[in-house]
Amino acid sequence: MRAVCAPTLILISVTICCSLTEKQTNGSSPNIIILLMDDMGWGDLGVLGQPSKETPNLDAMAAQGILLTNFYTANPLCSPSRAALLTGRLPVRNGFYTTNAHARNAYTPQEIVGGISKDEILLPEMLKKNGYISKIVGKWHLGHRPQYLPLEHGFDEWFGSPNCHFGPYNIMCFPHLTQLYILFEGMDFIRRQTEAKQPFFLYWAADATHSPVYASKSFLGKSQRGRYGDAVMELDYSIGQILSLLQNLGIEENTFVFFTSDNGAALMSGPQESGSNGPFLCGKETTFEGGMREPAIAWWPGHIKGGAVSLQPANVMDLFTTSLALAGISPPDDRMLDGLDLTPVLLNGSHQLDNRPIFFYRGNEMMAVRLGQYKAHYWTWSNSLEELKDGINFCPGQEVPGVTTHDQKEHTLQPLIFHLGRDPGEKYPLSVLSKEYQEVLCSVSAVVQQHQKTLVPGMPQLNMCDLAVMNWSPPGCEKLGKCLKPPASAPWKCNWPH
Amino acid sequence: MRAVCAPTLILISVTICCSLTEKQTNGSSPNIIILLMDDMGWGDLGVLGQPSKETPNLDAMAAQGILLTNFYTANPLCSPSRAALLTGRLPVRNGFYTTNAHARNAYTPQEIVGGISKDEILLPEMLKKNGYISKIVGKWHLGHRPQYLPLEHGFDEWFGSPNCHFGPYNIMCFPHLTQLYILFEGMDFIRRQTEAKQPFFLYWAADATHSPVYASKSFLGKSQRGRYGDAVMELDYSIGQILSLLQNLGIEENTFVFFTSDNGAALMSGPQESGSNGPFLCGKETTFEGGMREPAIAWWPGHIKGGAVSLQPANVMDLFTTSLALAGISPPDDRMLDGLDLTPVLLNGSHQLDNRPIFFYRGNEMMAVRLGQYKAHYWTWSNSLEELKDGINFCPGQEVPGVTTHDQKEHTLQPLIFHLGRDPGEKYPLSVLSKEYQEVLCSVSAVVQQHQKTLVPGMPQLNMCDLAVMNWSPPGCEKLGKCLKPPASAPWKCNWPH
Repeated sequence: MRAVCAPTLILISVTICCSLTEKQTNGSSPNIIILLMDDMGWGDLGVLGQPSKETPNLDAMAAQGILLTNFYTANPLCSPSRAALLTGRLPVRNGFYTTNAHARNAYTPQEIVGGISKDEILLPEMLKKNGYISKIVGKWHLGHRPQYLPLEHGFDEWFGSPNCHFGPYNIMCFPHLTQLYILFEGMDFIRRQTEAKQPFFLYWAADATHSPVYASKSFLGKSQRGRYGDAVMELDYSIGQILSLLQNLGIEENTFVFFTSDNGAALMSGPQESGSNGPFLCGKETTFEGGMREPAIAWWPGHIKGGAVSLQPANVMDLFTTSLALAGISPPDDRMLDGLDLTPVLLNGSHQLDNRPIFFYRGNEMMAVRLGQYKAHYWTWSNSLEELKDGINFCPGQEVPGVTTHDQKEHTLQPLIFHLGRDPGEKYPLSVLSKEYQEVLCSVSAVVQQHQKTLVPGMPQLNMCDLAVMNWSPPGCEKLGKCLKPPASAPWKCNWPH
Repeated sequence: MRAVCAPTLILISVTICCSLTEKQTNGSSPNIIILLMDDMGWGDLGVLGQPSKETPNLDAMAAQGILLTNFYTANPLCSPSRAALLTGRLPVRNGFYTTNAHARNAYTPQEIVGGISKDEILLPEMLKKNGYISKIVGKWHLGHRPQYLPLEHGFDEWFGSPNCHFGPYNIMCFPHLTQLYILFEGMDFIRRQTEAKQPFFLYWAADATHSPVYASKSFLGKSQRGRYGDAVMELDYSIGQILSLLQNLGIEENTFVFFTSDNGAALMSGPQESGSNGPFLCGKETTFEGGMREPAIAWWPGHIKGGAVSLQPANVMDLFTTSLALAGISPPDDRMLDGLDLTPVLLNGSHQLDNRPIFFYRGNEMMAVRLGQYKAHYWTWSNSLEELKDGINFCPGQEVPGVTTHDQKEHTLQPLIFHLGRDPGEKYPLSVLSKEYQEVLCSVSAVVQQHQKTLVPGMPQLNMCDLAVMNWSPPGCEKLGKCLKPPASAPWKCNWPH
């Protein structure tokens, strides 16, 4: 399904690289910008039905580009989703999962010992083969210990924080100025590389819509939607600024821009601190559509037809493979990749990938799979009753009997199957007695069997925690007199409750 | 709040009428077209977030016109909603309600004795004052006995059925050709009046998206959404045809077109037979947003700025008053009207009406009121547990504790209040202890008190049923040999279970 290049071909690829780099101003090896939102939901965009319609810049981006309404993340939470995007591989392959308990969501809090393995190849490392300079602005979240940081994994520049949201990073993450800095850093990078005639990759991973939600002063109180809406409005404004800059610099026809989010809206954070998943079921942390379906827009004037809508089932891992295709670089041939090259879909409206499967994992378990319009759930779980009693609810206001189960319910012998065209909200499982069910089961089973048979799980990186690894003395702490002494190492198996 | 004209002024109004009629080709007294869908939901339009994006013509209509995202019906079901649109008055005033039991939804099935009162003034009757010719195409639903039919209430032409969906109207309502006939009849009327240089009112009330859902042969199986989606696609196509015709005839700048639906998607009909209410709670039959919020687009090239979005709280009764304003006709001064003139909003983006209240009735009870961004529920009820056990569910997959109640729950002393900007899905009532709650309660209470103090309920038309009034021998039955003999009259109080 994808080009495999033998070792001897790598030299050729390097040769191509140089000629492509030279040609970059006429459209090959375009610059690549990935705008990755944090906990923004599918339904937060005006063009996707948010009733207050407060995203004029994103709506315009869709009108000038292509809107992908069946685009997914690889995992319903931050760290694994980001690891998947940058490696083109499912978290169960790249190690961003846990085996401490069955089907648990794990990420990289301060006390995590692991991070992105040196054996994984990240997108900026690949792009370097063709002379790209890469920068990450915003949230990393693939491990905060020195060996896991962005500059060790192919990025040339980094502005932002390794983790965010908790602990010692308050100063970095929550003042009113943060979003302005993040915008400035992204635009400054674009300007500098353009002046240097240097092909670039910008990974712009703003975290403003993650709880605790923040916005700059000039956006506070501006939205009809409360503080969360203020943050969305500022991000929308920022993205408008970035696209305008590309146009002002005259590089818009040489810059491929992709907008998406890392997982569904974090409904458990309540109405002031979380967004909307539109008509979909549940939110972040679940493998229902509300946890996994993402807003997605590709923008590349002169190459992508404006105002198009694609129903192509696609996901964040495709961004790895698609970026390589755009850059004229062969993907790694020594490992299984989950991403596909979407350029035929985005540039030519091809339907050849319509039947590619999308896998929905929670930790070490394949919970569900989508094939065409059908989604089959092999396991269902919203969250435990114990957590629910503590006020943690991933599906507030939603209860679909037998679907949003509060225990881990196995359906492997008889999966729940939904037709997402007729029933995007996953409320009506097909009758197991119907001919439709039997036919779908047949084709889905073959795909699942093939997937599971060939799956080689990576070494799980998110099993061990240790207070000693927390960033007790971040750079600059001396000046503030805030350096802390780490405790002695005392690792434990992290507790992942959901 | 609205112009009141004394009897002497009526003569002046008549004088204005004639001069306006002559001027019609340059933009005054425009033609008026109301496209009223049946059970189509807010979330069924691409521009409002339906994931399959299958309404290119409606999306284009919005791009060329103004989208109203806070537009409501007057009642969460068909007959009262239509009576309200055509009279500009709440059903509790115009008689389209029942007092047989508290807070019950009532409509006009075959056995209903009542219908639209001769004391009500309908929009086509008013428009006649200024020389308009009016036609209804599609579903009437304001009573099927002779005295209640459209030609008795101001319409000059009528193609369609008095009731539809049940009983002897199968032939009329459900063959594949119906939607084509309805389109043809509408377009033929537009052509004829344009040729005659005659200002016209077309009330195009297609019923294709009401269960049992149907579409013409060329649309069957075309949608990603199943049969319901096929029907939406055909309606979308038909509306595209109507707008194109206006442009081809060169009368688009002289024709005001408004698109909306009679109530929320009928979720109880299941995924094959009902649509989407997007992010809103519950559906048809309820006074939650899913039952009452409607898709709405106003289109008038050269007068309404394209691509605009209005957050103005508005409703179907405003179409009565707005149409009169467009036609240069003073509204009736002898009765209370609930509709407002929206022309300042639609033509000039005025915000002067932002704080007008929207009332949500179920039968004889004011269940809720919206004021600004706030909605206060004085009564909540989804449907009874008995009905739920029978499989009738107006909120499938949704359960908001204390909100989607299965008994009629009174909150008149302490209404449930939601902020619809932050929480369009009505999942998080404001804390009654908050300052925000107390302030909102204060302003809402004043509005409700004023409303209830001055309310003079009309004579309820939907109390009595009688098998004898059914249309046993519709015109043409002789030719088919299908005339039936009516039974003796034996009226009873209709049973309205929800």
